[in-house]
Amino acid sequence: MHKYKVSILGASGYTGSELIRLLHQHPNTIINHITASKHANKEISEVFPHLNNSINLKLEQLAPSNIPEDTDVVFAALPHGASAEIINKIYKRDIKIIDLGADFRLNAKNYKDWYGDHPCTELLDNAVYGISELNKEQIATAKLVANPGCYPTSAILPLAPLLKSGVINEDNIIIDSKSGVTGAGRSPSLDTHFSEVNEGFKAYKVGEHRHCPEIEQQLSDYTGFDVNVTFTPHLIPIDRGILSTIYVNLKEKQTTSDLIKVYEDFYKNSHFIRIYPEGKYPNTSYVRGSNFCDIGVKSNPENKTAIIISAIDNLVKGASGQAIQNMNIMLDLPETTGINGLPLYP
Amino acid sequence: MHKYKVSILGASGYTGSELIRLLHQHPNTIINHITASKHANKEISEVFPHLNNSINLKLEQLAPSNIPEDTDVVFAALPHGASAEIINKIYKRDIKIIDLGADFRLNAKNYKDWYGDHPCTELLDNAVYGISELNKEQIATAKLVANPGCYPTSAILPLAPLLKSGVINEDNIIIDSKSGVTGAGRSPSLDTHFSEVNEGFKAYKVGEHRHCPEIEQQLSDYTGFDVNVTFTPHLIPIDRGILSTIYVNLKEKQTTSDLIKVYEDFYKNSHFIRIYPEGKYPNTSYVRGSNFCDIGVKSNPENKTAIIISAIDNLVKGASGQAIQNMNIMLDLPETTGINGLPLYP
Amino acid sequence: MHKYKVSILGASGYTGSELIRLLHQHPNTIINHITASKHANKEISEVFPHLNNSINLKLEQLAPSNIPEDTDVVFAALPHGASAEIINKIYKRDIKIIDLGADFRLNAKNYKDWYGDHPCTELLDNAVYGISELNKEQIATAKLVANPGCYPTSAILPLAPLLKSGVINEDNIIIDSKSGVTGAGRSPSLDTHFSEVNEGFKAYKVGEHRHCPEIEQQLSDYTGFDVNVTFTPHLIPIDRGILSTIYVNLKEKQTTSDLIKVYEDFYKNSHFIRIYPEGKYPNTSYVRGSNFCDIGVKSNPENKTAIIISAIDNLVKGASGQAIQNMNIMLDLPETTGINGLPLYP
Amino acid sequence: MHKYKVSILGASGYTGSELIRLLHQHPNTIINHITASKHANKEISEVFPHLNNSINLKLEQLAPSNIPEDTDVVFAALPHGASAEIINKIYKRDIKIIDLGADFRLNAKNYKDWYGDHPCTELLDNAVYGISELNKEQIATAKLVANPGCYPTSAILPLAPLLKSGVINEDNIIIDSKSGVTGAGRSPSLDTHFSEVNEGFKAYKVGEHRHCPEIEQQLSDYTGFDVNVTFTPHLIPIDRGILSTIYVNLKEKQTTSDLIKVYEDFYKNSHFIRIYPEGKYPNTSYVRGSNFCDIGVKSNPENKTAIIISAIDNLVKGASGQAIQNMNIMLDLPETTGINGLPLYP
Repeated sequence: MHKYKVSILGASGYTGSELIRLLHQHPNTIINHITASKHANKEISEVFPHLNNSINLKLEQLAPSNIPEDTDVVFAALPHGASAEIINKIYKRDIKIIDLGADFRLNAKNYKDWYGDHPCTELLDNAVYGISELNKEQIATAKLVANPGCYPTSAILPLAPLLKSGVINEDNIIIDSKSGVTGAGRSPSLDTHFSEVNEGFKAYKVGEHRHCPEIEQQLSDYTGFDVNVTFTPHLIPIDRGILSTIYVNLKEKQTTSDLIKVYEDFYKNSHFIRIYPEGKYPNTSYVRGSNFCDIGVKSNPENKTAIIISAIDNLVKGASGQAIQNMNIMLDLPETTGINGLPLYP
Repeated sequence: MHKYKVSILGASGYTGSELIRLLHQHPNTIINHITASKHANKEISEVFPHLNNSINLKLEQLAPSNIPEDTDVVFAALPHGASAEIINKIYKRDIKIIDLGADFRLNAKNYKDWYGDHPCTELLDNAVYGISELNKEQIATAKLVANPGCYPTSAILPLAPLLKSGVINEDNIIIDSKSGVTGAGRSPSLDTHFSEVNEGFKAYKVGEHRHCPEIEQQLSDYTGFDVNVTFTPHLIPIDRGILSTIYVNLKEKQTTSDLIKVYEDFYKNSHFIRIYPEGKYPNTSYVRGSNFCDIGVKSNPENKTAIIISAIDNLVKGASGQAIQNMNIMLDLPETTGINGLPLYP
Repeated sequence: MHKYKVSILGASGYTGSELIRLLHQHPNTIINHITASKHANKEISEVFPHLNNSINLKLEQLAPSNIPEDTDVVFAALPHGASAEIINKIYKRDIKIIDLGADFRLNAKNYKDWYGDHPCTELLDNAVYGISELNKEQIATAKLVANPGCYPTSAILPLAPLLKSGVINEDNIIIDSKSGVTGAGRSPSLDTHFSEVNEGFKAYKVGEHRHCPEIEQQLSDYTGFDVNVTFTPHLIPIDRGILSTIYVNLKEKQTTSDLIKVYEDFYKNSHFIRIYPEGKYPNTSYVRGSNFCDIGVKSNPENKTAIIISAIDNLVKGASGQAIQNMNIMLDLPETTGINGLPLYP
Repeated sequence: MHKYKVSILGASGYTGSELIRLLHQHPNTIINHITASKHANKEISEVFPHLNNSINLKLEQLAPSNIPEDTDVVFAALPHGASAEIINKIYKRDIKIIDLGADFRLNAKNYKDWYGDHPCTELLDNAVYGISELNKEQIATAKLVANPGCYPTSAILPLAPLLKSGVINEDNIIIDSKSGVTGAGRSPSLDTHFSEVNEGFKAYKVGEHRHCPEIEQQLSDYTGFDVNVTFTPHLIPIDRGILSTIYVNLKEKQTTSDLIKVYEDFYKNSHFIRIYPEGKYPNTSYVRGSNFCDIGVKSNPENKTAIIISAIDNLVKGASGQAIQNMNIMLDLPETTGINGLPLYP
């Protein structure tokens, strides 16, 4: 069986270790290079003790010349800004690149508003937004994929079918999202200090989260409408999982089963999207460790509103799992290869 | 110092034990009678080991004749239906009654829609809804107070000032609430089994929770408008706390500081309502164990919407703490007596 | 590739769903029958919503005649007593049987002391204790394997090498074990009610847990010494994981590195046993979802004592993972087939 | 009522905020000065949002001259080393000093072994070890009290009665302790990062924790024997609480009820020590937020061993609560003043 050689840039964070976990089960890949500049020359198991005696790979300095010549696929799980810089330098090589950071998710205008001038706008134009179920054709031929943010994944997948089919209004969409703490990364801070988070629940970055323009731009690009959303992220004292509760206005008096039908038709070939029957709703624990995006819906036809609830594992479908799904598509492998494990429950 | 004699009907649940904890610190009360029919004749510490060697009280059978003659105040923390029945039998005694259940919160019509025929509608008319900050005058002279539900408390306190002042629309109000697990009581079930709840997050009773009519009726009664809300409760894997994220439409382009000003004026004499400065938002852990209701707000004047966030401890301000606050008002004691402890943080 | 047909008796508990999760990734098996008497005729996804749209299997009544003729392997994950009864009835069929309950773990004498008369002592004599790393040869030829308890697995694997090699005394062994809540199963009770467990920590069944005789008997059988242990289980408010802290007396003044050497030699061919380097110690989160048993050790040569720390996932190496490991051995498949996934961290 | 003026040096950590919470309920004190050098000039509510709108105190730079002249009591909740330095400078003032750090807990020899040369050994000789129940007489007349460590409190209180009464051997004592994460303080680090701690359980500083010599020295000083212990701390993913499981050897075949009798006699006048009846054992959640130390015991007379289990809230009886208890004793106030609240359960 052919083994593609994979490089992971930025392997000391949670998305990095999740890539290692998932690729370990992937029959067509072999990890041949990992980096983490501040941990260069350490064994990965010194940084992640759960890999002790299981994964023998040494972390290297991040540098184009350190990425082996025969690398087939590069995953970049780097801080914002660092990705664009290194990808710009290796872009001409005969490789597939999947960026798990934010550097290629927004168009130049939005990027400037939220992050500043983009360092390589020509690449930006070539990057394909990697929301696998919606952009599969473009991903299949892409050289550079911008892997979606975790919150946007949890919002775009449930909203796209209803918008595209013209069932809901494109404004007055409210997305009330709740995320586990791994979404904040692995760098210690008071905001992620155990006793500050545990047994609490709060909203944060109210009205100013960088994932809001990503949701609006991508939904607008996908549907052709000018979509506007109100987005509020919250922090749940759990490790993994995002649950988004989405409030929309219906154009007509569709029932819950009407809406379920829209979803089932839209996602009938999408293995990783699980539509719930009427009266059942997702739970972050039902998708833990898996690449599923679960969707449930409840309509109130009388006042033409509906509530949509989605759940993903932010580190899998919201990051590393979807990245591997995109890799599979780019390499023309079956989409579910290596990522079709069932959720770890409980 | 005068000591009022207090009876707690239904002391084997979490609101019962929270009443015991809070009354233990109250200088003007003495608990002289507690009941729990299925644990009758047990020491309370057999049911609640944390009271071991600290509280020596025996649980009795629930019966009017078991409530001592000299009782001044009765707290009923009983299952729905059980409250009305016993209160009906003791109502004529010279006592103050505070019901922590749902039996006297709705008007007869709403009660019938959600629970069935009310067993004693004449008492229903006499009952005062005990949202302390809003109905203080009526509570002061009431014989029977219906203590608010936990979710309604977290929604009504932040919404009332904006509705009353005419700043927001009375429809299209979305209340996305999240509650700790003690809100589900102490009876074991699969839904509250540790491993089913822990490390998960879900919505439940989507579009059909009994607290929705309570919110609508009480806000309508208080403001004189016909208020309509969409209410979605969620379960947080923590013990205590409710955080409600509320989305409203502004009539004019008020700024965040305009809205804060409305709150500060409205609640300037309300010790237990803490209004947050701009850019800061509540967290359930900031109110744990206390009777505070914290409120933060963020306006988006451009599209005339605002996000309001409130936090309470569901067992204190959402139940037993507000019940004692109401008792203080009914007995003409300083409102904060016995319940002015700071939050337990972390 | 040949697919063995597998039946799971008692699939509505956590060990049952964990068998389903692990077998789903196993290339040589197909699940063709699952039972759960109280949920007979339900889809498994009605009982375990995380399997929604992923596993289509109907739960059947537990009965010998319901187990298909062509079944190759039967896993019994049934309450104590129920296993022996059904296994007795199907024992003569041409199948391999792995019992995850306690019915075949103790010898007749110990069984009687702790549970009462054994219903089929002749089978008891044929059952092999399935601690995979220690009893591999007997397991390979067994028809009936008694899968070890979770606590005993966490104690026997670290103790066996030191006892067998004569390094430690066989008495005065203290095993202080801590387990996640899934170890208590999925039946609701006050002891596993979320708010009773969360944010707490306690010992239970102090000096009287049924896993104590299992540890003593199996270690005695394995080593030939009469081994005596003091065993105290504790409940950690987490889902998965057992950490055992074991205090032993050394016969000589072995250093930490001496003891590590004993372990590394003993387990040099055991993929699932990971020995920690000096100064590093296991954590339940480092093995979550995996079949590893991690072991760390610290010697105090001066006073001839040592502390050994082991960690397993109670549902995997402590139950379903080890059961599949045993199945692999019984079927002469590579021992790690289907269970070599990395831990889910965090 | 007379109000003593209190200064808290180091108020930005958890023991500092817990002192504020408890003193807020104390009828005889007023906080007139708090410090936190790195947060100097901030309001305390900027550092601890749960005090927002409730406590109006400004943090000051740590300096002897900043401590007001009329201060009666100084609590020092400072990092190791910082305490001794400042206390040395203010010792001659007419004040009572309670040090919550480690600077005055060990004798000069032990201090040197574990921390280095002590900066003011003459004060060390004057300091009284503040384990309230055992050293009440010396505390009553002390000018400087060294408040015990949290782990030592959980070990010394249950061990002292059995050692003093000669019931158990003074060696071969094993203390297996488990602590919530607030014991690690409020400074962010990877070890206290939410996702590294949550859903895990581990031992740490195996065989080398600084609390071990404190336990041995204080028990030896108190009993007159040379007491030796093996001490292993573990981290529980909860906020508050220490549970210590202690294994001892009995000199005679005392039963559980014999040992309970020893405890009940020894602590008959100690309000904060709660001895459990036979067959019941402590839980950290039964003492949360309170100053109780709960003790349960199980004897195995046959092999002359016993298991003792204690539980405290590490921030209350293990730190700030015991500090206030000591203050009460030093000021000749009733010992329970301000700290007799019931546990917050759940």
